[in-house]
Amino acid sequence: MKEIKPIGVIHSPYTDLKNMPIQPKSAPEVEGQLEIFEEYTDGLKDLDGFSHIYILFSFHKSVRTDLIVKPFMDEKLRGVFSTRSPNRPNHIGISIVELVKVEENIVTVKGIDALDGTPLLDIKPYMRKFDEHTTSREGWQDNNIDDIKDIKSDDRFL
Amino acid sequence: MKEIKPIGVIHSPYTDLKNMPIQPKSAPEVEGQLEIFEEYTDGLKDLDGFSHIYILFSFHKSVRTDLIVKPFMDEKLRGVFSTRSPNRPNHIGISIVELVKVEENIVTVKGIDALDGTPLLDIKPYMRKFDEHTTSREGWQDNNIDDIKDIKSDDRFL
Repeated sequence: MKEIKPIGVIHSPYTDLKNMPIQPKSAPEVEGQLEIFEEYTDGLKDLDGFSHIYILFSFHKSVRTDLIVKPFMDEKLRGVFSTRSPNRPNHIGISIVELVKVEENIVTVKGIDALDGTPLLDIKPYMRKFDEHTTSREGWQDNNIDDIKDIKSDDRFL
Repeated sequence: MKEIKPIGVIHSPYTDLKNMPIQPKSAPEVEGQLEIFEEYTDGLKDLDGFSHIYILFSFHKSVRTDLIVKPFMDEKLRGVFSTRSPNRPNHIGISIVELVKVEENIVTVKGIDALDGTPLLDIKPYMRKFDEHTTSREGWQDNNIDDIKDIKSDDRFL
Protein backbone atom coordinates (compact mmCIF):
# COMPACT_ATOMS: atom_id res chain seq x y z
CA MET A 1 0.00 0.00 0.00
CA LYS A 2 0.95 3.61 -0.54
CA GLU A 3 2.28 5.37 2.51
CA ILE A 4 -0.15 7.73 4.23
CA LYS A 5 1.29 11.07 5.39
CA PRO A 6 -0.65 13.84 7.12
CA ILE A 7 -1.21 17.00 5.06
CA GLY A 8 -1.71 18.99 8.24
CA VAL A 9 -3.05 18.95 11.78
CA ILE A 10 -6.48 19.71 13.23
CA HIS A 11 -6.75 22.22 16.08
CA SER A 12 -9.93 21.95 18.13
CA PRO A 13 -11.18 22.64 21.66
CA TYR A 14 -11.24 18.91 22.41
CA THR A 15 -8.33 17.47 24.34
CA ASP A 16 -10.05 14.44 25.85
CA LEU A 17 -11.76 11.63 23.96
CA LYS A 18 -14.54 11.66 26.52
CA ASN A 19 -17.39 14.20 26.41
CA MET A 20 -16.83 15.14 22.80
CA PRO A 21 -19.62 15.69 20.25
CA ILE A 22 -20.18 12.43 18.40
CA GLN A 23 -20.75 14.14 15.02
CA PRO A 24 -20.31 17.63 13.52
CA LYS A 25 -24.08 18.13 13.70
CA SER A 26 -23.90 17.63 17.47
CA ALA A 27 -21.89 20.85 17.82
CA PRO A 28 -22.30 22.86 14.61
CA GLU A 29 -20.99 26.11 16.10
CA VAL A 30 -17.73 24.77 17.49
CA GLU A 31 -14.81 26.27 15.58
CA GLY A 32 -11.54 24.60 14.75
CA GLN A 33 -8.58 25.22 12.48
CA LEU A 34 -7.02 23.00 9.89
CA GLU A 35 -3.33 23.85 9.75
CA ILE A 36 -2.04 22.72 6.37
CA PHE A 37 1.64 21.93 6.09
CA GLU A 38 3.57 24.36 3.91
CA GLU A 39 4.28 21.88 1.14
CA TYR A 40 0.53 21.35 0.51
CA THR A 41 -0.72 24.93 0.85
CA ASP A 42 -0.97 25.53 -2.91
CA GLY A 43 -3.68 22.87 -3.04
CA LEU A 44 -6.02 25.15 -1.03
CA LYS A 45 -6.64 27.41 -4.05
CA ASP A 46 -10.39 27.74 -4.78
CA LEU A 47 -11.40 25.89 -1.61
CA ASP A 48 -12.97 29.03 -0.13
CA GLY A 49 -15.62 28.88 -2.84
CA PHE A 50 -17.26 26.01 -1.00
CA SER A 51 -19.38 26.39 2.13
CA HIS A 52 -18.94 22.78 3.24
CA ILE A 53 -16.00 20.40 2.98
CA TYR A 54 -15.15 16.82 3.82
CA ILE A 55 -12.17 16.31 6.06
CA LEU A 56 -10.45 12.94 6.28
CA PHE A 57 -8.36 12.32 9.35
CA SER A 58 -6.69 9.63 11.37
CA PHE A 59 -8.27 8.51 14.65
CA HIS A 60 -4.75 8.70 16.04
CA LYS A 61 -5.70 7.90 19.62
CA SER A 62 -7.56 4.75 18.68
CA VAL A 63 -5.36 1.80 19.41
CA ARG A 64 -7.73 -1.10 18.80
CA THR A 65 -9.71 -2.52 15.93
CA ASP A 66 -13.05 -3.99 17.00
CA LEU A 67 -15.17 -5.67 14.35
CA ILE A 68 -18.20 -5.67 16.68
CA VAL A 69 -18.92 -2.44 18.59
CA LYS A 70 -21.61 -0.73 20.64
CA PRO A 71 -22.18 2.68 18.98
CA PHE A 72 -22.69 5.87 20.98
CA MET A 73 -26.25 6.04 19.68
CA ASP A 74 -27.16 2.49 20.54
CA GLU A 75 -26.88 -0.15 23.23
CA LYS A 76 -26.73 -3.16 20.93
CA LEU A 77 -23.67 -4.72 19.37
CA ARG A 78 -23.21 -3.81 15.71
CA GLY A 79 -20.79 -4.63 12.93
CA VAL A 80 -18.18 -1.88 12.81
CA PHE A 81 -18.80 -1.08 9.13
CA SER A 82 -22.42 -0.18 9.99
CA THR A 83 -21.12 2.41 12.49
CA ARG A 84 -18.82 5.43 12.67
CA SER A 85 -16.75 3.90 15.49
CA PRO A 86 -13.11 5.07 15.58
CA ASN A 87 -11.85 1.60 16.45
CA ARG A 88 -12.17 0.44 12.85
CA PRO A 89 -9.65 -1.04 10.45
CA ASN A 90 -7.39 1.76 9.17
CA HIS A 91 -8.81 4.22 11.76
CA ILE A 92 -9.83 6.81 9.14
CA GLY A 93 -12.53 9.32 10.08
CA ILE A 94 -14.66 11.53 7.83
CA SER A 95 -16.48 14.68 8.89
CA ILE A 96 -18.39 17.24 6.88
CA VAL A 97 -17.69 20.69 8.31
CA GLU A 98 -18.62 24.25 7.42
CA LEU A 99 -15.85 26.32 5.90
CA VAL A 100 -15.55 29.75 7.54
CA LYS A 101 -12.42 31.13 5.87
CA VAL A 102 -9.06 30.25 4.35
CA GLU A 103 -6.08 32.42 5.33
CA GLU A 104 -2.74 31.29 3.94
CA ASN A 105 -2.29 27.76 5.32
CA ILE A 106 -5.07 27.95 7.94
CA VAL A 107 -8.61 26.79 7.17
CA THR A 108 -11.12 27.84 9.84
CA VAL A 109 -14.13 25.53 10.07
CA LYS A 110 -17.29 25.10 12.15
CA GLY A 111 -18.70 21.83 13.42
CA ILE A 112 -15.39 20.23 14.20
CA ASP A 113 -15.68 16.95 16.09
CA ALA A 114 -12.07 15.77 16.08
CA LEU A 115 -9.55 15.77 18.90
CA ASP A 116 -6.99 18.58 19.04
CA GLY A 117 -3.81 17.42 17.33
CA THR A 118 -5.56 14.99 14.98
CA PRO A 119 -3.55 14.29 11.80
CA LEU A 120 -5.40 15.59 8.74
CA LEU A 121 -5.22 13.33 5.68
CA ASP A 122 -7.29 15.09 3.02
CA ILE A 123 -9.86 17.79 2.21
CA LYS A 124 -12.52 17.42 -0.50
CA PRO A 125 -15.36 19.75 -1.50
CA TYR A 126 -18.90 18.82 -0.46
CA MET A 127 -21.20 19.00 -3.49
CA ARG A 128 -24.90 18.38 -2.99
CA LYS A 129 -25.43 16.98 -6.45
CA PHE A 130 -22.90 14.24 -5.77
CA ASP A 131 -23.29 13.79 -2.05
CA GLU A 132 -27.02 13.90 -1.33
CA HIS A 133 -28.79 10.60 -1.62
CA THR A 134 -32.38 9.58 -1.05
CA THR A 135 -32.15 6.65 1.30
CA SER A 136 -34.75 3.93 1.65
CA ARG A 137 -33.43 2.56 4.95
CA GLU A 138 -30.94 3.65 7.56
CA GLY A 139 -30.45 0.51 9.58
CA TRP A 140 -30.19 0.24 13.31
CA GLN A 141 -30.22 3.98 13.89
CA ASP A 142 -33.50 4.78 12.13
CA ASN A 143 -35.32 5.39 15.38
CA ASN A 144 -32.85 6.90 17.76
CA ILE A 145 -30.97 9.64 15.98
CA ASP A 146 -33.03 12.68 16.95
CA ASP A 147 -31.20 13.61 20.09
CA ILE A 148 -27.59 13.53 18.99
CA LYS A 149 -26.91 16.93 20.51
CA ASP A 150 -27.48 15.35 23.91
CA ILE A 151 -25.12 12.46 23.29
CA LYS A 152 -21.44 12.90 24.12
CA SER A 153 -18.62 10.45 23.69
CA ASP A 154 -17.65 8.28 26.63
CA ASP A 155 -14.87 5.80 27.31
CA ARG A 156 -16.24 2.84 25.37
CA PHE A 157 -13.70 3.14 22.57
CA LEU A 158 -10.68 3.84 24.78
CA MET B 1 1.43 7.25 10.88
CA LYS B 2 -0.55 4.06 11.26
CA GLU B 3 -0.15 1.57 8.48
CA ILE B 4 -3.01 1.39 6.01
CA LYS B 5 -4.08 -2.09 4.91
CA PRO B 6 -6.90 -2.92 2.49
CA ILE B 7 -9.96 -4.58 4.02
CA GLY B 8 -10.91 -5.95 0.63
CA VAL B 9 -10.95 -5.35 -3.08
CA ILE B 10 -13.47 -3.67 -5.39
CA HIS B 11 -14.72 -5.53 -8.45
CA SER B 12 -16.19 -3.34 -11.18
CA PRO B 13 -16.67 -3.34 -14.95
CA TYR B 14 -13.95 -0.70 -15.34
CA THR B 15 -10.53 -1.88 -16.36
CA ASP B 16 -9.23 1.34 -17.92
CA LEU B 17 -8.90 4.73 -16.22
CA LYS B 18 -10.20 6.37 -19.38
CA ASN B 19 -13.93 6.53 -20.21
CA MET B 20 -15.08 5.83 -16.67
CA PRO B 21 -17.94 7.63 -14.93
CA ILE B 22 -16.52 10.52 -12.94
CA GLN B 23 -18.89 10.03 -10.00
CA PRO B 24 -21.37 7.37 -8.77
CA LYS B 25 -24.24 9.59 -9.92
CA SER B 26 -22.85 9.46 -13.45
CA ALA B 27 -23.65 5.76 -13.63
CA PRO B 28 -26.07 4.91 -10.84
CA GLU B 29 -27.09 1.52 -12.28
CA VAL B 30 -23.62 0.08 -12.72
CA GLU B 31 -23.12 -2.82 -10.31
CA GLY B 32 -19.95 -3.81 -8.56
CA GLN B 33 -18.90 -6.07 -5.72
CA LEU B 34 -16.91 -5.30 -2.62
CA GLU B 35 -15.02 -8.45 -1.69
CA ILE B 36 -14.17 -8.21 2.01
CA PHE B 37 -11.20 -10.17 3.24
CA GLU B 38 -12.09 -13.04 5.58
CA GLU B 39 -10.55 -11.45 8.67
CA TYR B 40 -12.87 -8.42 8.43
CA THR B 41 -16.14 -10.16 7.44
CA ASP B 42 -17.62 -10.03 10.96
CA GLY B 43 -17.64 -6.24 10.69
CA LEU B 44 -20.33 -6.46 7.96
CA LYS B 45 -23.05 -7.34 10.51
CA ASP B 46 -26.02 -4.90 10.29
CA LEU B 47 -24.65 -3.20 7.16
CA ASP B 48 -27.53 -4.50 5.04
CA GLY B 49 -29.88 -2.29 7.04
CA PHE B 50 -28.56 0.73 5.15
CA SER B 51 -29.54 1.60 1.58
CA HIS B 52 -26.45 3.77 0.97
CA ILE B 53 -22.87 3.45 2.16
CA TYR B 54 -19.61 5.34 1.91
CA ILE B 55 -16.69 3.41 0.51
CA LEU B 56 -13.14 4.61 1.04
CA PHE B 57 -10.55 3.30 -1.36
CA SER B 58 -7.07 3.86 -2.66
CA PHE B 59 -6.58 5.44 -6.08
CA HIS B 60 -3.98 2.73 -6.59
CA LYS B 61 -3.22 3.61 -10.20
CA SER B 62 -2.51 7.25 -9.43
CA VAL B 63 1.21 7.73 -9.31
CA ARG B 64 1.47 11.51 -8.99
CA THR B 65 0.39 14.19 -6.56
CA ASP B 66 -0.60 17.44 -8.27
CA LEU B 67 -1.52 20.39 -6.05
CA ILE B 68 -3.02 22.24 -9.02
CA VAL B 69 -5.29 20.25 -11.37
CA LYS B 70 -7.80 20.69 -14.15
CA PRO B 71 -10.95 18.82 -13.03
CA PHE B 72 -13.04 16.70 -15.41
CA MET B 73 -15.89 19.17 -15.02
CA ASP B 74 -13.83 22.27 -15.73
CA GLU B 75 -11.17 23.69 -17.98
CA LYS B 76 -9.52 25.97 -15.44
CA LEU B 77 -6.74 25.11 -13.04
CA ARG B 78 -7.95 24.50 -9.46
CA GLY B 79 -6.40 23.68 -6.13
CA VAL B 80 -6.56 19.92 -5.65
CA PHE B 81 -8.42 20.13 -2.33
CA SER B 82 -11.30 21.90 -4.11
CA THR B 83 -11.61 18.91 -6.48
CA ARG B 84 -12.09 15.14 -6.42
CA SER B 85 -8.95 14.53 -8.48
CA PRO B 86 -7.27 11.17 -7.81
CA ASN B 87 -3.78 12.70 -8.00
CA ARG B 88 -4.06 14.09 -4.48
CA PRO B 89 -1.90 13.62 -1.42
CA ASN B 90 -2.61 10.17 0.07
CA HIS B 91 -4.67 9.16 -2.99
CA ILE B 92 -7.78 8.28 -0.98
CA GLY B 93 -11.12 8.27 -2.77
CA ILE B 94 -14.65 8.39 -1.34
CA SER B 95 -17.81 7.28 -3.11
CA ILE B 96 -21.37 6.98 -1.87
CA VAL B 97 -22.93 3.90 -3.43
CA GLU B 98 -26.26 2.09 -3.13
CA LEU B 99 -26.17 -1.17 -1.22
CA VAL B 100 -27.96 -3.98 -3.05
CA LYS B 101 -27.17 -6.97 -0.83
CA VAL B 102 -24.66 -8.51 1.52
CA GLU B 103 -23.89 -12.22 1.09
CA GLU B 104 -21.18 -13.60 3.34
CA ASN B 105 -18.11 -11.51 2.46
CA ILE B 106 -19.49 -10.01 -0.76
CA VAL B 107 -21.28 -6.63 -0.75
CA THR B 108 -23.06 -5.91 -4.03
CA VAL B 109 -23.46 -2.21 -4.75
CA LYS B 110 -24.83 0.07 -7.47
CA GLY B 111 -23.22 3.27 -8.70
CA ILE B 112 -19.65 2.03 -8.52
CA ASP B 113 -17.13 4.40 -10.09
CA ALA B 114 -13.85 2.75 -9.10
CA LEU B 115 -11.48 0.73 -11.22
CA ASP B 116 -11.63 -3.08 -11.03
CA GLY B 117 -9.09 -4.28 -8.49
CA THR B 118 -9.14 -1.09 -6.39
CA PRO B 119 -8.06 -1.68 -2.77
CA LEU B 120 -10.96 -1.03 -0.39
CA LEU B 121 -10.00 0.76 2.85
CA ASP B 122 -13.27 1.20 4.73
CA ILE B 123 -17.07 1.13 4.64
CA LYS B 124 -19.27 3.51 6.65
CA PRO B 125 -23.05 3.92 6.70
CA TYR B 126 -24.56 6.95 4.94
CA MET B 127 -26.98 8.69 7.30
CA ARG B 128 -28.97 11.65 6.01
CA LYS B 129 -29.15 13.37 9.36
CA PHE B 130 -25.37 13.50 9.56
CA ASP B 131 -24.46 13.72 5.93
CA GLU B 132 -26.88 16.15 4.32
CA HIS B 133 -25.88 19.78 4.51
CA THR B 134 -27.50 22.93 3.19
CA THR B 135 -24.74 24.64 1.26
CA SER B 136 -24.54 28.35 0.57
CA ARG B 137 -21.92 28.08 -2.15
CA GLU B 138 -20.34 25.33 -4.20
CA GLY B 139 -17.34 27.03 -5.71
CA TRP B 140 -16.07 26.68 -9.20
CA GLN B 141 -18.55 23.99 -10.18
CA ASP B 142 -21.75 25.85 -9.36
CA ASN B 143 -22.59 26.33 -12.99
CA ASN B 144 -21.40 23.31 -14.83
CA ILE B 145 -22.46 20.23 -12.93
CA ASP B 146 -25.75 19.40 -14.63
CA ASP B 147 -24.46 17.15 -17.35
CA ILE B 148 -22.18 14.83 -15.42
CA LYS B 149 -23.70 11.77 -17.07
CA ASP B 150 -22.19 12.96 -20.33
CA ILE B 151 -18.72 13.45 -18.87
CA LYS B 152 -16.32 10.52 -18.84
CA SER B 153 -12.82 10.36 -17.50
CA ASP B 154 -9.96 10.95 -19.89
CA ASP B 155 -6.19 10.72 -19.64
CA ARG B 156 -5.53 13.96 -17.79
CA PHE B 157 -4.66 12.28 -14.50
CA LEU B 158 -2.57 9.46 -15.99
